[in-house]
Amino acid sequence: MFVIALVPRSEHIMKITNWAAVLHAVHDLRVDEIPVPTPGPNEVLIAVRSVGICGSDLHYWEHGRIGTFIVKSPMVLGHESAGVVEEVGQSVTHLSPGDRVAIEPGVPCRSCSLCKSGRYNLCPDVQFLATPPVDGSMARYIVHAADSCYELPDHVSLDEGAMFEPLSVGIHACRRGVVGMGSRVLITGAGPIGLMSLLVAKISGASRVSVTDLRTDRLDLAAELGAEIVTDLDSEVGTFDVTIDCTGAEAAVRTAIRATCSGGKVVLVGMGSDELTLPIVEAATREVDMLGLFRYANTYPTARSLIASGTVDVKPLITHRFGLDEVLDAFEIARSAEDGVIKVMVNIE
Amino acid sequence: MFVIALVPRSEHIMKITNWAAVLHAVHDLRVDEIPVPTPGPNEVLIAVRSVGICGSDLHYWEHGRIGTFIVKSPMVLGHESAGVVEEVGQSVTHLSPGDRVAIEPGVPCRSCSLCKSGRYNLCPDVQFLATPPVDGSMARYIVHAADSCYELPDHVSLDEGAMFEPLSVGIHACRRGVVGMGSRVLITGAGPIGLMSLLVAKISGASRVSVTDLRTDRLDLAAELGAEIVTDLDSEVGTFDVTIDCTGAEAAVRTAIRATCSGGKVVLVGMGSDELTLPIVEAATREVDMLGLFRYANTYPTARSLIASGTVDVKPLITHRFGLDEVLDAFEIARSAEDGVIKVMVNIE
Amino acid sequence: MFVIALVPRSEHIMKITNWAAVLHAVHDLRVDEIPVPTPGPNEVLIAVRSVGICGSDLHYWEHGRIGTFIVKSPMVLGHESAGVVEEVGQSVTHLSPGDRVAIEPGVPCRSCSLCKSGRYNLCPDVQFLATPPVDGSMARYIVHAADSCYELPDHVSLDEGAMFEPLSVGIHACRRGVVGMGSRVLITGAGPIGLMSLLVAKISGASRVSVTDLRTDRLDLAAELGAEIVTDLDSEVGTFDVTIDCTGAEAAVRTAIRATCSGGKVVLVGMGSDELTLPIVEAATREVDMLGLFRYANTYPTARSLIASGTVDVKPLITHRFGLDEVLDAFEIARSAEDGVIKVMVNIE
Amino acid sequence: MFVIALVPRSEHIMKITNWAAVLHAVHDLRVDEIPVPTPGPNEVLIAVRSVGICGSDLHYWEHGRIGTFIVKSPMVLGHESAGVVEEVGQSVTHLSPGDRVAIEPGVPCRSCSLCKSGRYNLCPDVQFLATPPVDGSMARYIVHAADSCYELPDHVSLDEGAMFEPLSVGIHACRRGVVGMGSRVLITGAGPIGLMSLLVAKISGASRVSVTDLRTDRLDLAAELGAEIVTDLDSEVGTFDVTIDCTGAEAAVRTAIRATCSGGKVVLVGMGSDELTLPIVEAATREVDMLGLFRYANTYPTARSLIASGTVDVKPLITHRFGLDEVLDAFEIARSAEDGVIKVMVNIE
Repeated sequence: MFVIALVPRSEHIMKITNWAAVLHAVHDLRVDEIPVPTPGPNEVLIAVRSVGICGSDLHYWEHGRIGTFIVKSPMVLGHESAGVVEEVGQSVTHLSPGDRVAIEPGVPCRSCSLCKSGRYNLCPDVQFLATPPVDGSMARYIVHAADSCYELPDHVSLDEGAMFEPLSVGIHACRRGVVGMGSRVLITGAGPIGLMSLLVAKISGASRVSVTDLRTDRLDLAAELGAEIVTDLDSEVGTFDVTIDCTGAEAAVRTAIRATCSGGKVVLVGMGSDELTLPIVEAATREVDMLGLFRYANTYPTARSLIASGTVDVKPLITHRFGLDEVLDAFEIARSAEDGVIKVMVNIE
Repeated sequence: MFVIALVPRSEHIMKITNWAAVLHAVHDLRVDEIPVPTPGPNEVLIAVRSVGICGSDLHYWEHGRIGTFIVKSPMVLGHESAGVVEEVGQSVTHLSPGDRVAIEPGVPCRSCSLCKSGRYNLCPDVQFLATPPVDGSMARYIVHAADSCYELPDHVSLDEGAMFEPLSVGIHACRRGVVGMGSRVLITGAGPIGLMSLLVAKISGASRVSVTDLRTDRLDLAAELGAEIVTDLDSEVGTFDVTIDCTGAEAAVRTAIRATCSGGKVVLVGMGSDELTLPIVEAATREVDMLGLFRYANTYPTARSLIASGTVDVKPLITHRFGLDEVLDAFEIARSAEDGVIKVMVNIE
Repeated sequence: MFVIALVPRSEHIMKITNWAAVLHAVHDLRVDEIPVPTPGPNEVLIAVRSVGICGSDLHYWEHGRIGTFIVKSPMVLGHESAGVVEEVGQSVTHLSPGDRVAIEPGVPCRSCSLCKSGRYNLCPDVQFLATPPVDGSMARYIVHAADSCYELPDHVSLDEGAMFEPLSVGIHACRRGVVGMGSRVLITGAGPIGLMSLLVAKISGASRVSVTDLRTDRLDLAAELGAEIVTDLDSEVGTFDVTIDCTGAEAAVRTAIRATCSGGKVVLVGMGSDELTLPIVEAATREVDMLGLFRYANTYPTARSLIASGTVDVKPLITHRFGLDEVLDAFEIARSAEDGVIKVMVNIE
Repeated sequence: MFVIALVPRSEHIMKITNWAAVLHAVHDLRVDEIPVPTPGPNEVLIAVRSVGICGSDLHYWEHGRIGTFIVKSPMVLGHESAGVVEEVGQSVTHLSPGDRVAIEPGVPCRSCSLCKSGRYNLCPDVQFLATPPVDGSMARYIVHAADSCYELPDHVSLDEGAMFEPLSVGIHACRRGVVGMGSRVLITGAGPIGLMSLLVAKISGASRVSVTDLRTDRLDLAAELGAEIVTDLDSEVGTFDVTIDCTGAEAAVRTAIRATCSGGKVVLVGMGSDELTLPIVEAATREVDMLGLFRYANTYPTARSLIASGTVDVKPLITHRFGLDEVLDAFEIARSAEDGVIKVMVNIE
């Protein structure tokens, strides 16, 4: 019942018409025709094919804002995406039309000290897809910085390419927590990011990866992906080297601190209330570091290596697929987060 | 009026009699005669000469406990100390009677994974002077692990040797915060530990070391030691690479987070209430790491190098000296924390 | 034909008699009866059950020395070992008779700055099994520092416990090289240590682990263990993030430098001639770090986690087993290094 | 006698005429008139005022090449420079005409994985002043990437700004060697880079900074700058935490390895013969890391902080100044390296 009448008249017209999932206001998401953009010298025009729906897309759709980022004018959603290069800017040498690419959504300034020192995710001038006022990638055509597009080997699908983005969060989380050989890792929250962190921790040599969640269906999936399910964390005080909190809930973070061993690390991935009341003295005196996360940096090459080599398989997390004309259905199912819904992919033709 | 009648009859008697500042109960600190201990094979008998009074000594004196550490039976206070080796255990080879040594108060188990990996301060079985039920070093004679005693060069005084301890906290704080060349450092709180952190930050190449405190006398001293005094932190949002909080106060830690740049670090040295309500999302999304501190490890060799080479001068922080017989005066003046009081040293003969 | 007449008369006599593989001189290895030692307070008496033969054992056997370590009086060989605790010293609390343990062969001083800072493998006073003049563990009974003995879960065999030792070298090599998610790793030399490094790199998230060797049988095994076999390194200039050289050969190290990308690392595990002529300017100007290895530190807990959790399977590397009475056969086959020989295990009853 | 007839007729003509020190062939350095360049959108036009002569300038002048970098057509020399912004490109916002700036000579691609991860000095496409075929900055006017220009505070001179470049090498060397609090540092070679490393090590908290050189005048200057002079390194085996070799000579690097403690680092700054024969087994088995250097990255902000705050004073190293018309004298005196010559500065009007 949410199907939108998106009726291109011919293949030829499809090629030159741009459609996008545009958020006009809270709960007002439409598929609009928008202009086909032209790539600048260091940009490429991409025919987007796969866009995952992220929690932030849902949040903008339902609330029109995330913190200080407010949707003030119509904005295209989507930032977990992959597509096919259609046209390259005049200075682009490493890509050609027809190349299939994963699209890293953040384009930093490349000039500030944070960019130059390798932490470009913290660049104050970063332009990030579907973060107001920057349009997202849930569109037939977008232009994007060429060096933020990573060519996919033939055997990696465009849906997998779109998954580089949430996988990047898991990579960055595990890097910040220094997950490695023999690490005992606790992941609180088994949503898409928790599961991504699980996948990454598993292949980083962690000898124990435990997951908590209130939902049985998610724990089941976590178990299938190799997690140990923990139901009684009270008996696990000081047990884990690294705890990755993917809930943002105060109770979970408190548990995370207690469950982490002296000298360990709590990685704060989930975002809940702005303020949390925490046992800071306990964390401090056991030198349990509290390390946050803002998106990721330098993860796309790693994501590509891991997926291309078969080291990580993200496909089990893609549970639903919709066309662009079914985008409202896609958002509804993603919002429902009902049993078995992990990543909802919008496929654009 | 607090002078205690401690009247040894002769030099000879002094040599074989042990006296110690023993805390019997809250506000009941006495100088008692106690047995002269005998060193084990890997221990030394030390004639203690200099013991600084630390905030924890005051806290035990006034409250009888610090968190879960409770003084249940009489306990000798003091853990910032230096003295002269009187006798060495049979397996001790690197020290001889007459050697002047700084005494590292923590003796870890040396066998657990934290000890073996270099973080022995977090050893669950560490024995630490003047932490219940372990007696402290404010005594004429103590025995101590020989390898926790660091020989002093002739030109380093025993009072300076006692200062290795608070200096160690400053070293560990700066290490955790990765203070280095060109770092912009904010220190909130200009008590002894704040000033120590200031000294260490200055000689680590920090190009800006700013200090805040409510007390003018302490800011004046900080300024003399090379600090820039900051009175309006509201205009310094995201300005510092590292903030070292030496207050433990919620307001200060909140300020610390805000004043620290994206990708920077907040080092939590001060201990206030067990629980703090903090803008965790702000810290996390700017990747401002929150790193606590429990004492220190591997700092005494560094402290010795820094003081012996003249790189750091801790002498200006020693503001008062008392004999063991004046120990109550010493504690009173230390507790008063009146203008000009930084480190109160008890000298034992 | 190398079977030694080791004929214990009864099971009871076996229990109270100690036999050991003692190197008397070059090529003069005998199974001698030696005294059953008595554990000190922090030691345990271990009935050794599994001892792997290491290249260093072979080297002492054939040459009587390794560098400055010279066998001047009869010495028990063997340091890759596991066994059953027979008796514990009076201060030992974490082990009991009957516990099955992997034996970390190095016992450091625990007191020097290297020990205290976590690099105890570099301790100048470390006592290491089967390194002159310290006897090794190829004996029915040894005493050893209790905290260097790691209890094995029931499902981990004693042979696997003995393999903690060579696995530790692989762990330390990968740690020094910072092998992790997405690393492209080259291992030159597919002997026991090269294969161990391969196993560790694979489970650390490396997306590509390539191996070179001159021997087809070893490459075949490497391939079975998941390696990519590289035959033409000339086309792989600057391709690898980390190269682990397990040959010590000048030509291999030169290749390692060239094959490693700018900003990468060459880990020097193999030991060949004392001096190598290398393209240092090339390594330096591409910031290819050259990092050596001396044994390992803090690896046994990791080895245990990896093996106990099934993350690493070392069993395929154990290719031969002999009894203590067949020790000369064991050494001959190990020395022969003929096709299919990787790790030769001596099982003691 | 080397004075070149560079006779501008009026101040006005000076402003619109560009002159540069152009290397035409070995020993054929001329001051030529060249076009005034036009800045691109992200570039600035700079009136260069101070250019230090570096060893590489001398090497090109004398040999026409450095390794594979060959001067095939006339090339402007110079890359240690500072000047005044004359004009800014249309996209430049952080600089304005009249701003005084230090010029970081390397302009990386900003797009490759090395650039994005903070190691842009290793970027394969970096454009570096006075490295063939890129012209240098010893000219009245150059254009340069705006974000490679660092504004100088009023109290920092342009000569000091030019010194950011050699200071950067010292910063990068000390960073690679992890020089910090209490480090014992040995610097072999007291030329400009050795002295810069000395300055940086001193302010990084090193408690001992020792310098070796064959020349008495340089040792005298090093001593004035706070170094301890070492004449007998044979008695200093394993004494230093970090050795920074600024000679590139095989004998010195061999000494460096021996003088460095187990677990320490040798930083290879000097470039001599392409190949060195070194005691690799000794370095490896003591885990003495050998770490090279290619220029530097992320050092200019640090250099500015250190010089602006007075933490480092580079002025004593500027020993000679010449005008652009005296550039041949400047090169002659720099090449002579006679007593008292450290840094020769060419001042352009």
